[in-house]
Amino acid sequence: MTDTMNKKLKRISESDRISEYDHATQKTLEEIDAIQNELDTINEKASEEILQIERKYNRIRKPHFEKRNQLINSIPNFWVTAMMNHPDLSNLFSGQEEEDCLHHLTKIEIEDFEDIMSGYYIKFYFDENPYFENAVLTKEYHLGNDPPTSKSSQIIWKEGYQLGQNTQETTNKNSRKRRVDCLKTSFFNWFNDNIDPYTDDFAEEFKDDLWLNPLQYYLVADGQEEENGIEGEEESSSDDNDDSAIPEDQSGTNSQSASSSLTGRTV
Amino acid sequence: MTDTMNKKLKRISESDRISEYDHATQKTLEEIDAIQNELDTINEKASEEILQIERKYNRIRKPHFEKRNQLINSIPNFWVTAMMNHPDLSNLFSGQEEEDCLHHLTKIEIEDFEDIMSGYYIKFYFDENPYFENAVLTKEYHLGNDPPTSKSSQIIWKEGYQLGQNTQETTNKNSRKRRVDCLKTSFFNWFNDNIDPYTDDFAEEFKDDLWLNPLQYYLVADGQEEENGIEGEEESSSDDNDDSAIPEDQSGTNSQSASSSLTGRTV
Repeated sequence: MTDTMNKKLKRISESDRISEYDHATQKTLEEIDAIQNELDTINEKASEEILQIERKYNRIRKPHFEKRNQLINSIPNFWVTAMMNHPDLSNLFSGQEEEDCLHHLTKIEIEDFEDIMSGYYIKFYFDENPYFENAVLTKEYHLGNDPPTSKSSQIIWKEGYQLGQNTQETTNKNSRKRRVDCLKTSFFNWFNDNIDPYTDDFAEEFKDDLWLNPLQYYLVADGQEEENGIEGEEESSSDDNDDSAIPEDQSGTNSQSASSSLTGRTV
Repeated sequence: MTDTMNKKLKRISESDRISEYDHATQKTLEEIDAIQNELDTINEKASEEILQIERKYNRIRKPHFEKRNQLINSIPNFWVTAMMNHPDLSNLFSGQEEEDCLHHLTKIEIEDFEDIMSGYYIKFYFDENPYFENAVLTKEYHLGNDPPTSKSSQIIWKEGYQLGQNTQETTNKNSRKRRVDCLKTSFFNWFNDNIDPYTDDFAEEFKDDLWLNPLQYYLVADGQEEENGIEGEEESSSDDNDDSAIPEDQSGTNSQSASSSLTGRTV
């Protein structure tokens, strides 16, 4: 428990400092310190109970996610459509070739590791395709590591293909802004990038938004298309006002009102 | 439950859209939609269980916080010192007069409302002072409201005093940046401001950081002082390396390594 060790190291350093006060104040500060220790213990117990509940509900949700994936499997291009309609994940398409490649994406699976705090994985399943050999591309986030790390399957490209790498090739590899710009425009650049999982917002969008309710992105809201002045295949419907009247959802699963760069409803 | 209502409105709008697909796809999308409904129900149950645990531990923590406050009460200027040593809350001192006034702060109390999700209050207790009549200044955050709101006790200033208001008087009252700059420099401007509780970072610093462990800010780390080139009263100690070796705490209660604008150790 790194966290507990930090706190212990911190306590030692605080004890040093307490000894510099007059005797009565020292005694009081030590008593306050003892209470902080008790509170730490209480907080650890609370965290453990909350983790147990999260683990329990992860187990309860799992068969529902599996059944959902079976159903999604019978809808062609479900995931690529949902991703392209997603306000943030739509930035992961560098161009026509990458978009064509992602039409071979058949399934996404996202799951916490057994010890929830230690991280999670995202698995992208692909059918036979002209671009690479892998049937599954896995990106793992090890958030319990210090510092947190991520790792990606090595993609075995077929001859003539190596998507992502040449997108906005940068002359200054140390530039974080350049790196972020680069990740923004390519699924494969994002997938292969493991420099800093803490700045990996796309992973969070996959895990905490798309995965929780992909249907809402597959079924694009009319409002979004109109906001962007893109008509898509869908006729203008009369419930636009209903959509715009829905207040923003605090759970983060209802982000249809966010501005988006849509490329059409189905792809 | 606004959240549940949003989801229902959303479902209606999704059902409209589902009807535009061919029959087989419609059926599958409806089945996926049904699973999303099941997942929503599961998520609501999970949230409710987690809230119950948080409520339970709030009750367990409460007597510890009360005992801590009794002890703190015997240390003069504990809270104002902790605030001035805090990397963010130290920005709430507009000048000598406001600092002098905050030396009359004797106690802080922060507590969730009985229904945790609905918000919390922060109470600042003051002893008899030349600045205002109130014995307690309360700021309440009603986060269950849509949109969330906050409200503050009306301060009954004594003649000749009205702290905060004139700090960086702005000509453009609609400018959010100006507003933030203004809040940054005055405790009383922050306290009286109720425009948008969502951008009120200071409330979060009080609740989720200072309140959880004020002792760490009362006892300033040496490392901080050295980082800022301020020596304070404290002699340079030999455990600086220990401090700098402590990795960043993920719980948010250990932010001593953050850069800070210290004004000295005790005030």
